[in-house]
Amino acid sequence: MYLSQIASPNDVKALDRRELPVLCQELRQAILESSAAVGGHVGPNLGVVELSVALHRVFSSPHDKIIFDVSHQSYAHKALTGRAQAFIDPARYLEVSGFSNPLESEHDLFAMGHTSTSIGLALGMAKARDLAGDSHDVVAVIGDGSLSGGLAFEGLDNAAACGCGLIIIVNDNDQSIAENHGGLYRNLAELRATNGTASNNLFVAMGLDYRYLEAGNDVLTLVDALEELRGCDHPVVLHIHTLKGMGFAPAEQDPEAWHHVGPFDLVTGEKRACTASAGPDYAELTATYLLPQMERDRSVVAITAATPYIMGFTPERRALAGDQFIDVGIAEEHAVTLSAGLAAAGAKPVLGVYGTFLQRAYDELWHDLCLNASPATILVFGSSVFGTTDQTHLGYFDISMLGNMPDLRYLAPVGPEDYLVMLDWSISQKDRPVAIRVPVLNDPASCKLPIAASYDEPAYQTVRQGSDIAVLALGDFFGMGERLADEIERRAGFSVTLVNPRFVTELDKPYLTDLARSHRLVVTLEDGVLEGGWGEKVARYLGPLGVRVRCHGVHIGFPDRYDPQELLAENGMTVDEMAADALELLTLSD
Amino acid sequence: MYLSQIASPNDVKALDRRELPVLCQELRQAILESSAAVGGHVGPNLGVVELSVALHRVFSSPHDKIIFDVSHQSYAHKALTGRAQAFIDPARYLEVSGFSNPLESEHDLFAMGHTSTSIGLALGMAKARDLAGDSHDVVAVIGDGSLSGGLAFEGLDNAAACGCGLIIIVNDNDQSIAENHGGLYRNLAELRATNGTASNNLFVAMGLDYRYLEAGNDVLTLVDALEELRGCDHPVVLHIHTLKGMGFAPAEQDPEAWHHVGPFDLVTGEKRACTASAGPDYAELTATYLLPQMERDRSVVAITAATPYIMGFTPERRALAGDQFIDVGIAEEHAVTLSAGLAAAGAKPVLGVYGTFLQRAYDELWHDLCLNASPATILVFGSSVFGTTDQTHLGYFDISMLGNMPDLRYLAPVGPEDYLVMLDWSISQKDRPVAIRVPVLNDPASCKLPIAASYDEPAYQTVRQGSDIAVLALGDFFGMGERLADEIERRAGFSVTLVNPRFVTELDKPYLTDLARSHRLVVTLEDGVLEGGWGEKVARYLGPLGVRVRCHGVHIGFPDRYDPQELLAENGMTVDEMAADALELLTLSD
Repeated sequence: MYLSQIASPNDVKALDRRELPVLCQELRQAILESSAAVGGHVGPNLGVVELSVALHRVFSSPHDKIIFDVSHQSYAHKALTGRAQAFIDPARYLEVSGFSNPLESEHDLFAMGHTSTSIGLALGMAKARDLAGDSHDVVAVIGDGSLSGGLAFEGLDNAAACGCGLIIIVNDNDQSIAENHGGLYRNLAELRATNGTASNNLFVAMGLDYRYLEAGNDVLTLVDALEELRGCDHPVVLHIHTLKGMGFAPAEQDPEAWHHVGPFDLVTGEKRACTASAGPDYAELTATYLLPQMERDRSVVAITAATPYIMGFTPERRALAGDQFIDVGIAEEHAVTLSAGLAAAGAKPVLGVYGTFLQRAYDELWHDLCLNASPATILVFGSSVFGTTDQTHLGYFDISMLGNMPDLRYLAPVGPEDYLVMLDWSISQKDRPVAIRVPVLNDPASCKLPIAASYDEPAYQTVRQGSDIAVLALGDFFGMGERLADEIERRAGFSVTLVNPRFVTELDKPYLTDLARSHRLVVTLEDGVLEGGWGEKVARYLGPLGVRVRCHGVHIGFPDRYDPQELLAENGMTVDEMAADALELLTLSD
Repeated sequence: MYLSQIASPNDVKALDRRELPVLCQELRQAILESSAAVGGHVGPNLGVVELSVALHRVFSSPHDKIIFDVSHQSYAHKALTGRAQAFIDPARYLEVSGFSNPLESEHDLFAMGHTSTSIGLALGMAKARDLAGDSHDVVAVIGDGSLSGGLAFEGLDNAAACGCGLIIIVNDNDQSIAENHGGLYRNLAELRATNGTASNNLFVAMGLDYRYLEAGNDVLTLVDALEELRGCDHPVVLHIHTLKGMGFAPAEQDPEAWHHVGPFDLVTGEKRACTASAGPDYAELTATYLLPQMERDRSVVAITAATPYIMGFTPERRALAGDQFIDVGIAEEHAVTLSAGLAAAGAKPVLGVYGTFLQRAYDELWHDLCLNASPATILVFGSSVFGTTDQTHLGYFDISMLGNMPDLRYLAPVGPEDYLVMLDWSISQKDRPVAIRVPVLNDPASCKLPIAASYDEPAYQTVRQGSDIAVLALGDFFGMGERLADEIERRAGFSVTLVNPRFVTELDKPYLTDLARSHRLVVTLEDGVLEGGWGEKVARYLGPLGVRVRCHGVHIGFPDRYDPQELLAENGMTVDEMAADALELLTLSD
């Protein structure tokens, strides 16, 4: 086996040319076996095995700089840069992150997991090289799906202007996470169909040098093409055609389903049932709610930025929705601005998006949607410390982002029942943009929560009336708040007020004023960061009123592949510790 | 005079064709005279007089939808849609906003002042039209400068995919605010040079229909071209060549200087001295500090996103800086990601940007810069309630945006002395990204502030030691804090502690803990929004400690063309009211 002998890229260079295809086969098998065991971005990584080998054959990382956009194509790169055992030895499968990570290797230049950044990062490195008078190569590898993000276009535009030596490899597998959408993909198709000779050429039009290589999964051809580009003194695009899922029939045949998967059977391709998520399936709930609405009302439009599955829109449901479903590609900014346009013209847009990716549309939320009070609905998925735990995709910064947008109403349902009522209310109202924080943690309250039919005015909900201490627990942390209230009652022997605030953006000021009069301590709980979060608003409002306030949440930072319960414990958020803290504070306020 | 008779676009339609050029002349003169009196976006508006007349001749607003990107080209449109007197009658010059505003007219479809949004908004309106079965035209007018923003590209890409009937007019005056930078501008130049026939064509490559019109300042030719596009059933780009500053020689000759101006002499073109800003010129300070640094150290790179003037980089200084000055065009996302790349490769990037536009780079700040702890310096300009007062450009939301970024250090200098020390420190350190909130309000403290040489650790500065009440006043509101402390002392007869916190992102926790022990009330002042702001962090930290806290700042919202002192007063931020409030709270805490 060659792969197990690859301790660094130098070992790729030491192989005989004829051995490279064998190394590729070994790599592909290792990626398949490790992914089958622990899951991963199977499709994109299988497609770039040959490219990765060729890159490390031709260039000398880390002297030369190779930047893999979004890191979904970095497994083979990792295996070739001192981390082969993490793909060979089952006991070590979880040793490496699924993303580029400088703490893991000097060959990983950036922590990155959002798309479309590689060209700008590479251009910065190329520019710094030129200013320092150095002469190494800088290479950005970007998939066709990532090209639709405006940041990638800004990078191409500026690269052409700067004129620095820079190699941009467009890895075109004709597929984003789902199928591609956008005019640029017609151009990529035209270029593929003409072996790169079509006169319509986006890259050339932007002033970039351009090469095309059809045999993107032929390692020796790739080596030759890259050799030609070494030391290139100007920006050049090498457009290569690869096959997503290459070498694994199920992934080749259904690239959307195999973009990212959990564990699966390597022989049959059957996916192993995950036992973790026994709770409500919010994707299913969303699609099965929306589809009949869309059928009844042509003005209801569902929008995604390349992640239709998060709102349950399978290929079959997308076909049913027809022109009322829009996939804008990886383009969250445009998704929000498009929603503002739709809403202004009387339509009812519903945008489903991961909170971590919605960060890309901060200004569009502020300037297009909120400033214009556009009645669009945004469903924010994955926003919780129990969401994705990779540092690149932390989903619990949404409250500090959305919570401070003027005229936005951000609602936090506790579970599926109030989620659907909120969604229904939001679509029917015409006053403002509404975002809904789709629960991630399945932790239902043991008590039956009354559900309001309207969210026209911010109004907190008393679930249990007590005295001295009030616990305000937001959204999917309501269950934790209930347990905290129970524990304090058990220890202290008196009733605690338990509140479901429901509104993230606006305070129920009369309610809070009353609370301050009748309580000595107010405790807030939220499934998000403390800094800029919801609890701080409560603390600020109560600050002059003489009641003590304790806000519970997670401090800002970039924990990576963390255990959610441990993260909460590190932030003092166990029921035990919070109860003890509350009782101690109560003593102080005597 | 025709213009004074134009009460609505119908009156444009009622004119004889031969009268249209006369109307254009009148419009140009009215725009010049009103701008000479009160200032405005002279250059861009002079260039689109003919286009505006032609649009309202051919299309029927508001039935047809016309969306002017960034609103810098909307004066003639305003004058033709019932607001002519605001350009003719000097007593009414200030009646209309400089930006598109739906509250002003049904012909203004969106409040907008950030660039690159028009295509997405227009596409949303076109899509909603199609779903509703309506048949009006939708037109987006976008300048060449705005095209470099990634959002515009995302809009073009999605427009081609949707295929809706949509007219995109690219108003190409070959100039952004400063000169254009980027590969796409070479393509626009090639298209202009070939009368639109060049085979390199960015728009065609993206799958859009394309027409070129050289005579972009000939109203009758424009009318004919637009007539041809009426009812177009697919997305089409009409690329027209106009002259920025058309008809006013000084503006034609120096389009950068005449993009936006204050009052000027209509005959000589001489600009009237503004008496308002007698304070330090931070643009000058920045450039005169940076240029010698750049000369000494090739790794220092100044970066702008099309607003070089805010950091004092005049055309002469840009020439001096050479390849160490990068204008990325209107592309804030890329500016931040490029900075991360530069920093990772050892360079020292200094990005100067308006806070309101930095909103576009929220995710790049979080994911590219902060996650990678890239030692870049970001100078945030205009962030104050005393900055731009148009609702589209409110600059005081920066703290709730930047203040909650992990691993960013955001510093708030009080005046020019500590600003320069902070800038110097930031460039020399290698640990993290640093943002500096360049003061807007010139309100120096009467006391002499000691200046720290290092900002390695968050440390608040006691300027005056007192008891019972502590006033913590951030950045350019320190002077206000000093006056508040004086006023409380005058009324109450005891000394007040006065603190210069300097750090926006991190709390000096030991300091605050001490403060809570020795004081009964802590008052925070900041020149920004309360929600998600700095004061709330202080309130949250002090919440459990039993000291009352009052946070002063401005509530979120979209005030438009407001008076800063009135806005502060509405938020209870007069020294009188804040002093009375503090003393009342002190009584309660007895």
